[in-house]
Amino acid sequence: MIQTILYPKRSQWSELMQRAISNTSELHDTVASIINEVRTRGDEALMEFSRKFDNVELNSLKVSADEIAEADDIVPHSLKQAIAIAAKNISKFHKAQRMEEIKLDTTPGVMCAQRAVPISKVGLYIPGGNSPLFSTVLMLAIPARIAGCRKIVLCTPPDKQGKVHPAILYAARVAGVTEIYKVGGAQAVAAMAYGTESIPKVYKIFGPGNRFVMEAKQQVGSQAVAIDMPAGPSEVMIIADDNASPRFVASDFLSQAEHGPDSQSILLTTSEDFAAKLPAVIEELLGTLPRQEMMKKSLSHSRIIVLKDDDEIMDFSNEYAPEHLIINHNDADALAEKVENAGSVFLGAYSTESAGDYASGTNHTLPTSGYAHSYSGVNLDSFCKKITFQHLTQEGLNNIGNAIEIMAENEDLMAHRLAVTVRLQEINS
Amino acid sequence: MIQTILYPKRSQWSELMQRAISNTSELHDTVASIINEVRTRGDEALMEFSRKFDNVELNSLKVSADEIAEADDIVPHSLKQAIAIAAKNISKFHKAQRMEEIKLDTTPGVMCAQRAVPISKVGLYIPGGNSPLFSTVLMLAIPARIAGCRKIVLCTPPDKQGKVHPAILYAARVAGVTEIYKVGGAQAVAAMAYGTESIPKVYKIFGPGNRFVMEAKQQVGSQAVAIDMPAGPSEVMIIADDNASPRFVASDFLSQAEHGPDSQSILLTTSEDFAAKLPAVIEELLGTLPRQEMMKKSLSHSRIIVLKDDDEIMDFSNEYAPEHLIINHNDADALAEKVENAGSVFLGAYSTESAGDYASGTNHTLPTSGYAHSYSGVNLDSFCKKITFQHLTQEGLNNIGNAIEIMAENEDLMAHRLAVTVRLQEINS
Repeated sequence: MIQTILYPKRSQWSELMQRAISNTSELHDTVASIINEVRTRGDEALMEFSRKFDNVELNSLKVSADEIAEADDIVPHSLKQAIAIAAKNISKFHKAQRMEEIKLDTTPGVMCAQRAVPISKVGLYIPGGNSPLFSTVLMLAIPARIAGCRKIVLCTPPDKQGKVHPAILYAARVAGVTEIYKVGGAQAVAAMAYGTESIPKVYKIFGPGNRFVMEAKQQVGSQAVAIDMPAGPSEVMIIADDNASPRFVASDFLSQAEHGPDSQSILLTTSEDFAAKLPAVIEELLGTLPRQEMMKKSLSHSRIIVLKDDDEIMDFSNEYAPEHLIINHNDADALAEKVENAGSVFLGAYSTESAGDYASGTNHTLPTSGYAHSYSGVNLDSFCKKITFQHLTQEGLNNIGNAIEIMAENEDLMAHRLAVTVRLQEINS
Repeated sequence: MIQTILYPKRSQWSELMQRAISNTSELHDTVASIINEVRTRGDEALMEFSRKFDNVELNSLKVSADEIAEADDIVPHSLKQAIAIAAKNISKFHKAQRMEEIKLDTTPGVMCAQRAVPISKVGLYIPGGNSPLFSTVLMLAIPARIAGCRKIVLCTPPDKQGKVHPAILYAARVAGVTEIYKVGGAQAVAAMAYGTESIPKVYKIFGPGNRFVMEAKQQVGSQAVAIDMPAGPSEVMIIADDNASPRFVASDFLSQAEHGPDSQSILLTTSEDFAAKLPAVIEELLGTLPRQEMMKKSLSHSRIIVLKDDDEIMDFSNEYAPEHLIINHNDADALAEKVENAGSVFLGAYSTESAGDYASGTNHTLPTSGYAHSYSGVNLDSFCKKITFQHLTQEGLNNIGNAIEIMAENEDLMAHRLAVTVRLQEINS
């Protein structure tokens, strides 16, 4: 089921790094037309799409206070406790990311400062379907609240009864979401990008979704708002040595496979022995789990790759730039120092990806498809922008004014020079 | 020439905030075809585009060490000294933005860390034309070098003699650019996004350019690489009180107008008197400058707006979200505290935008067109990604394992639960 490759040459690496590719070109027009409908007809279009896609007739797009209170009664106590533990850790880690204002004189009389300021309105998209992703609500809304975003808007599709899953409503309340709307798909993204009668326009949109949602985020992201990051299928790279437990590694493979048929798991090891043992353990554990057909599809583009040494392993991993990187290896800390490209890194035998997916405190919204070469996962910064400030005194402008005049003149920008000249004349008159 | 609006109602504000809009839809196909040519035919296509667009036959795309040495001889001493002053300040301010690793236990036994890691390869685009933007070379390459980017690739179009302006080559050497190529336009962006025989693929592309370059950045940014930010015409908002010097403010208006016919300057003031005085001073100073026709075009969509108090002024400014905000006002520091949306802010009479454009130390690559609602200007972070790390001990997993199992089960992700269960079983057996 899983391909094993022994000692591939470097020239073969790029082929082994191929992700499962989904062709999105035919999506473009469908999504563009949905966006256009929402942009021009607002709530009316949203109601129509609810009838068409969610099979439900809604009276109101906004989730009421009663519905939120009702969810509070339904969510089991055990889940509330678990959410409290996760929320505490996520909150602690993201609070630690707060930035102090930076302020210094670069030259006497030339004060420069940089200050993080919250994005005032953000939009979070949470998919519907069978798995109610309340964990993603925590991962997006908690940092937004810590950053100080004033409006935290959440859109999620209703079920056929026009309801939102209670765990999503509960997590939204705990995390500090300010308003919740029953809208899904590309139309939800369009509503948050342009605003409708009910739904406020936001300045940045976050969150996962199907290919319609992703395409919509790309389209509005090049016109109207910022988006968190481009998204593709989820993926894990696992580096394991002979000391790793095959059961632990197999469970991490399967946990990744469960994300969807396009998900990918790749094992890198120097141990032929470990590589040989793993497939049978994966088979065995798979037998104990639901959704086996989908997971088999995902496992079919997973790979076990044996490389000659740890340097090759780190080169391969850095070139692949995995969303998740598990280093289940005796020298995990030393290898971690060599990580250049990855979304989130899990060190040692007990740091399963599930920990970061839910409750350790790190964020689980991470760059896929090699975007970890240049993108960060969602973090406190994702909800802020950094504004620079400067204050020059007369002394300050005297110190650097002439340099500015010369540079402006050499760039042939004479009004730029003039703005300094008129000031220097006044100072020195 | 410049429209003056007295005490507009809030309902009129959004109209007054309109930027000059350039329609880019017809560009899409032209640029897509250029990108496709470069992607499929590499250097050969680049050479063809040089013949077609730059009217030059190139032997080699790469700028040679001899050409860089030659530039060193040509650049005047005064400009070298000015560049040295600017480089020192830019370097000092961006070094101060370095982030320490964040590391803490969110729960006993659950260590979470966040570390900034440089983007290994970045590409800088510098436009050609009459103004050789060596200042932008400094603004992009200095932070890239401080961040630790290994490859800093610069593309800029050659002149008809196949040469690059010496000030650009000189600034590139001073700032730490690692390789320079004579390629301009959409084709340069495509080359850096996908790589050719001569030009390496990079992971993030920075820099200004004409509408072809901007469209190319948007297109590759949704497919292959990250880009710094979307870009539109440059703009300044100036807040001035009665104490401001009309000559200073007029020179800042003109300096903005000089950026191009779509540039916009808006004055906000509570003083009818100041508003009445300003146009004549702008006219007078304009008479002393070159490029008057272009600047008049730009000034035609600039505005002078009188508002009733400082609260209205700050509301208007935050809603507009200017790229540059000059607060030439006695209470500049107090008003600065209320800035929510802006790229870079200039406080007091002597902090002209020209200072930040060249030499104070802040970056001049800033969000336009209202993107300051959600985007930061280029800063040290722009050249890094933040990677999270976690290490759970047995104690750590014992502390949060059950919460993870419950959450995974409630999201119907049973393999995620299993990855914890197999570990807890081993720990507690």
